[in-house]
Amino acid sequence: MIDFDIARIRQAADRLDGRIVRTPVLSSPVLDDIAGANLFVKAESLQLTGSFKIRGAINKILSLDERSRRAGVVAFSSGNHGQGIAAAARIVGCPAVIVLPGSAARIKIDNCRWWGAETVFYDPASEDRAEISRDIAESRGMTLVPPFDDLDVMAGQGTVGLELAEQLRQADVEPDAVVVNCSGGGLSSGVVEAVNSAFPGIESFIVERDGLDKMARSIATGRVCTSPDTSTSIMGAIGGPVAGALPLAVLRRHAVTGLTVSDEEALEAVSTAFRVLKIVLEPGGAASLAAVLAQKPEFRGRNVAVVASGGNVDAEVFSMALDEHPPRRVPVGGLVRASRP
Amino acid sequence: MIDFDIARIRQAADRLDGRIVRTPVLSSPVLDDIAGANLFVKAESLQLTGSFKIRGAINKILSLDERSRRAGVVAFSSGNHGQGIAAAARIVGCPAVIVLPGSAARIKIDNCRWWGAETVFYDPASEDRAEISRDIAESRGMTLVPPFDDLDVMAGQGTVGLELAEQLRQADVEPDAVVVNCSGGGLSSGVVEAVNSAFPGIESFIVERDGLDKMARSIATGRVCTSPDTSTSIMGAIGGPVAGALPLAVLRRHAVTGLTVSDEEALEAVSTAFRVLKIVLEPGGAASLAAVLAQKPEFRGRNVAVVASGGNVDAEVFSMALDEHPPRRVPVGGLVRASRP
Repeated sequence: MIDFDIARIRQAADRLDGRIVRTPVLSSPVLDDIAGANLFVKAESLQLTGSFKIRGAINKILSLDERSRRAGVVAFSSGNHGQGIAAAARIVGCPAVIVLPGSAARIKIDNCRWWGAETVFYDPASEDRAEISRDIAESRGMTLVPPFDDLDVMAGQGTVGLELAEQLRQADVEPDAVVVNCSGGGLSSGVVEAVNSAFPGIESFIVERDGLDKMARSIATGRVCTSPDTSTSIMGAIGGPVAGALPLAVLRRHAVTGLTVSDEEALEAVSTAFRVLKIVLEPGGAASLAAVLAQKPEFRGRNVAVVASGGNVDAEVFSMALDEHPPRRVPVGGLVRASRP
Repeated sequence: MIDFDIARIRQAADRLDGRIVRTPVLSSPVLDDIAGANLFVKAESLQLTGSFKIRGAINKILSLDERSRRAGVVAFSSGNHGQGIAAAARIVGCPAVIVLPGSAARIKIDNCRWWGAETVFYDPASEDRAEISRDIAESRGMTLVPPFDDLDVMAGQGTVGLELAEQLRQADVEPDAVVVNCSGGGLSSGVVEAVNSAFPGIESFIVERDGLDKMARSIATGRVCTSPDTSTSIMGAIGGPVAGALPLAVLRRHAVTGLTVSDEEALEAVSTAFRVLKIVLEPGGAASLAAVLAQKPEFRGRNVAVVASGGNVDAEVFSMALDEHPPRRVPVGGLVRASRP
């Protein structure tokens, strides 16, 4: 029996209160017309550091005892997780070490350092980042913060779902479905738990990359499955190699359907979000939106809550999305909903 | 004595309640570090139709008597104003005619029609759009909605400032300055009135394009000034040819400082908003942010409320902004403010 429930997510929300952005839920009749459904997009891309990762990181740090917290935290990641840990440590006031490949992009190194984190480099060809991180943690009494397979991290990410449910209630919206991106499962397990607690009977969808549906296979088989690591691809945010065991256990409690999207579908969703919602999404953060736009029959005419999980995208990729996916002509007509969150 | 005060803006807010998006106020310690000031960005680009224009349009329509409202409204504009009127009419449930040049971009025509507006075309070389619009209004009993020189339109746009003031209060932020884009002055007059009412003594800045500071000159001379019409330029949203007489009268009541920015500065602000805030701004909508980023000494170390007024930008212009204004390296350091709106 895993100690993970809505109370734990609420406790995380109390810890995060006043420290992070309560991200808005966006909707647009034009988007609804394109989707053929009523979409409520939780724009977590507007979070500090441009993704949800800071939530789990702050909750993890604040769940440590005083002594461990003073010693600080270690993480290995050159992406959203690393930046989330660096920012969380700064906001909470503890040291952080981020372990990065020597080849990491300058901007990613700068981002970690901007938040005050110490950066340590390794050679991916000859060194194991997990081992290096464990050595640092042991020698300096620091705590290694895993990216997803940790109940405190999952509870922190679950606050995205808690806020989303509150915001939908405030807008008098009863959602039929929630759609959330999934890699290791830290975000999706927390969101599915929180949203199902608020709206029992809601249909839950996780979105992975075509051919890399490790979590959907894990849910089907009950065993942790892997996919090739594609974390450097266009949908890097959902390109990790393995499903988390704890997230899997939580997702298996609920009726969860796995969907997948292609890179092209994700880029089209990025372009649609630019044109219609006026927000910046990274392809892996837009996979959920892409799934709804691409797989319309599943969602037709329904109220669909969509978690857009991140906006950290290179200018080149973003421009490519806009260039290769110009606006499709929007059909004239459609209903305008007056009440908006 | 002009009948324009905070009560009129509050009345507009009551009319708009539940019909539009209460746009978020975004802030980021990274942005603050770049600016050398504490910025609170009212992201009105996330409004329905991608700009503030729908606010004034709805307020204008709802201030008409029942019979006029049923007859509907006319506007001439291929830009944000036209789309705002079309959407407002649809949301309120009255007919709208938008008068467009025959050369208008397909997407702009489609946008107006999507909202259900009737489109009428004219030849800019041989016909006068104002005259055509007046003819339609007279023959069909419709009301011509001017883009800015109208107290109901100004009161509607002023709700941007009313919300901003409320959101800053909720976040316990006392702003030292407010910075808002200005063309005809509909938005800036409403915002300056509302924010000065909430925070007496706040410094107010309006932002125009380099060499096209018609409103600043109008304020200085007390007479309505003009600039060449550059509404098709990169900063088209603030490129109209004339300052509004009523907005001018309101702005002259307050201590307002005029600033200007170049196209290059506006594009850099677009790129910064993409990278740091993860929002899509059009250059004319980012002029206020550009002014703060470019003219740092004015704002150093202060709490600055910035109205980012629109996000309707072509993909080509947006990609150019990202391409020509890559990230400047952000200095390491800076203070993190924990409390966020």
